[in-house]
Amino acid sequence: MKPIFAYEDFIVGKAILLGPYEVTSEAIIAFAEEFDPQPFHLSEEEGRDTLAGGLIASGWHSCSILMRMMCDAYLNNSLSQGAPGIDEVKWLKPIRPGDVLKGSSTVTAKRISRSRPELGIFKIRHELINQHDETVLTIVNSGMMGLRNPANRGDAE
Amino acid sequence: MKPIFAYEDFIVGKAILLGPYEVTSEAIIAFAEEFDPQPFHLSEEEGRDTLAGGLIASGWHSCSILMRMMCDAYLNNSLSQGAPGIDEVKWLKPIRPGDVLKGSSTVTAKRISRSRPELGIFKIRHELINQHDETVLTIVNSGMMGLRNPANRGDAE
Repeated sequence: MKPIFAYEDFIVGKAILLGPYEVTSEAIIAFAEEFDPQPFHLSEEEGRDTLAGGLIASGWHSCSILMRMMCDAYLNNSLSQGAPGIDEVKWLKPIRPGDVLKGSSTVTAKRISRSRPELGIFKIRHELINQHDETVLTIVNSGMMGLRNPANRGDAE
Repeated sequence: MKPIFAYEDFIVGKAILLGPYEVTSEAIIAFAEEFDPQPFHLSEEEGRDTLAGGLIASGWHSCSILMRMMCDAYLNNSLSQGAPGIDEVKWLKPIRPGDVLKGSSTVTAKRISRSRPELGIFKIRHELINQHDETVLTIVNSGMMGLRNPANRGDAE
């Protein structure tokens, strides 16, 4: 049986590695057709005459890719209780067809909920980089994660 | 020819209406299979035993739906130059199969770029509500929008 990530396993400052994840032009266009049909997300040609300079992924596609990489690396094997929202998204560089993304998730602060001692709350920062080692996306959010051993409250904090 | 929304057309405090947009279980599951394969995004049954209490849309799916509603209402018929990121996302209520979403985008502040007088910068707040008039999502971000008449700088502000 695979281990399950619980609140206790997330160490402040320790990066959890994500990826790799290859982005295809087909995936960029399919996402855009459904959710973000702007010219520079729909075809290389239409994007050439814009600031994008060609086909680039929707910013929401890049966020969704990060989510998938998080699910595969730890979230789908964890006691995650979701997130109330996002503190900050920065789309720093365009994501283009053929890009191979890697990344990391790093808990920057954690505490146990006062009202629900079985639940941990953390602040977490995510980063995606492309094959040229350029940071393309950063996200900061709060997340909720169940404790493996709620009784060991003192040990967990 | 349809009119093109330019910086001058966005009035601080005036809501631009979005939607309606119906969310199906098929769409929720398809998004989740690609980007967010957590149990409560994949099936009604798997979600029943979680905090979600059934099938709910991925938070990134809800952001992507808002993006599509923005594109349809004004963005794809505008001088938009994109956004550098997002200041805040709040997932306030789950989005469930059959929900019919409406919403609004409201510019809360605008100014013309000092370095690029043909470009306007604004802060904009978006909101989605469901058929029960519950707010399900709010997003705040900065956006860049071209001016129709860059020469009329004084008039535009």
